[in-house]
Amino acid sequence: LPEAVSTACFLPMNLNFTERLERAWDWSGSLLCIGLDPQTERLPDCLQGSERPFFTFNKAIIEATRGLACAYKPQFAHYAAAGRLDELEATLQLLRERVPEAICILDAKRGDIGSTAERYAKEAFDIYGADAVTVNPYMGGDTLQPFTNYGDRGVVVLCKTSNAGSGDLQNLALEKGGQLFEEVARLAATDWNANGNIALVVGATYPEELAQVRKWAPQLPILVPGIGAQGGDLEGTLRAGLRPDGKGLLINSSRGIIYASAGEDFAEAAAQAARELGEAINRYPGRVQR
Amino acid sequence: LPEAVSTACFLPMNLNFTERLERAWDWSGSLLCIGLDPQTERLPDCLQGSERPFFTFNKAIIEATRGLACAYKPQFAHYAAAGRLDELEATLQLLRERVPEAICILDAKRGDIGSTAERYAKEAFDIYGADAVTVNPYMGGDTLQPFTNYGDRGVVVLCKTSNAGSGDLQNLALEKGGQLFEEVARLAATDWNANGNIALVVGATYPEELAQVRKWAPQLPILVPGIGAQGGDLEGTLRAGLRPDGKGLLINSSRGIIYASAGEDFAEAAAQAARELGEAINRYPGRVQR
Repeated sequence: LPEAVSTACFLPMNLNFTERLERAWDWSGSLLCIGLDPQTERLPDCLQGSERPFFTFNKAIIEATRGLACAYKPQFAHYAAAGRLDELEATLQLLRERVPEAICILDAKRGDIGSTAERYAKEAFDIYGADAVTVNPYMGGDTLQPFTNYGDRGVVVLCKTSNAGSGDLQNLALEKGGQLFEEVARLAATDWNANGNIALVVGATYPEELAQVRKWAPQLPILVPGIGAQGGDLEGTLRAGLRPDGKGLLINSSRGIIYASAGEDFAEAAAQAARELGEAINRYPGRVQR
Repeated sequence: LPEAVSTACFLPMNLNFTERLERAWDWSGSLLCIGLDPQTERLPDCLQGSERPFFTFNKAIIEATRGLACAYKPQFAHYAAAGRLDELEATLQLLRERVPEAICILDAKRGDIGSTAERYAKEAFDIYGADAVTVNPYMGGDTLQPFTNYGDRGVVVLCKTSNAGSGDLQNLALEKGGQLFEEVARLAATDWNANGNIALVVGATYPEELAQVRKWAPQLPILVPGIGAQGGDLEGTLRAGLRPDGKGLLINSSRGIIYASAGEDFAEAAAQAARELGEAINRYPGRVQR
């Protein structure tokens, strides 16, 4: 693996987001995204006295999993609720320094009107230096534009989320045909995607919807949460979501990896869990380019 | 006006959110909500050298407008993008101490799945101590529940937002009839509102939609942004949104009030602008209880 690079050059400036993501897939040989969602009460005992427990925990896991994942996804709320946003910032900086080839997705599910969305984009991309951020499409395409205007960063739009109640709105049938999540997929692949830097979120708990989304958005990267603790369907996800080139998915696991062990071996256990999930993904026949 | 109270007792513990809001309307005699959205480049010159410019700015405006508004609404992104979340926290604390009768709405437009939504609720209600928080309904009712579980706090659900592109999804016609924002209003008034602490957001730029929302949710408080800089329609808003008791709306103005003057008189100018807008609202015939 390459040595740490200076934070000043973590983004090859001539690459757009899609090119960087393709490189991350190729570099790691993996579709795995590791969710960095520390919770105080679930940290290993050996970290309970640490001054910066979230950062120390993440650092050990990042070091142990280098090269095993194409992406990392810290979830904003976990840090905010614990009053540890400084440790989120330190985690993103560490990712840039130690795993610059991987994509760092800030999972914050932002969304607001123009002038305010500009500030959320600035928060994600300038303050935290994330490569991509998750956003909520409910407010419409003009609220995504301040994010997509950052052409070298990715904008990951919620489409069909992994939770049980996601159908309340997302599966409503539209008068013109199709369901709401399909319209989001269609707009994300067309009207909203002028800068070519949009990706989608579809939960692994809904492989049928994932297949529909893949029809509307044949090329878009799709972030798939819900494998592991949420009981998502890995094989169904791969069957429904892989592109013909065997890529196109970012398959996220958080708790199944970072809490693989509560002992002092937590980082090695996380690496082992990441390796196993990565291999399970790569054993799927469709992972070979057709 | 009452003197400052200790922060420990800012919330009368026996009142639920709706009762507190009714008291805020009655106490202030106003439907006005003042948006506290400081931007470094728009602060008065006299504050440019200040160590905590956002807090100093807000403090002057809060002191000058005490009693003129039923609510204040700081917008999270403005503080986050400037790296000034500590000043957001100080602002909320000041509001609890100096204007405990008014409702403090943290405008953060949160939304995530269960375990993460719990953390966002903790962020808004425990870390920042807000009386209410804005949330995005796209992910479904189960993602709102961690917020509504705080029975003494309010959950302000996006319904029809003020921006030009809000129709992309919100105005989609549903197969079963009505448009998406109407379904949100219906669910917010029924299935999602088991704890009776939901309010809605409808932009002043869409009075026709506001009238529809009022039909689906006859009693719910409605937060109305878009008056002032965004060109919303005040009279149309009042005609469409007031309840028969002459209340039921939180009419927000941010830039029109806080940037009324860029000079040293900014706080007095803000108070004057707040007074004028509050009086314009109260002159509307429907403000008298029918």
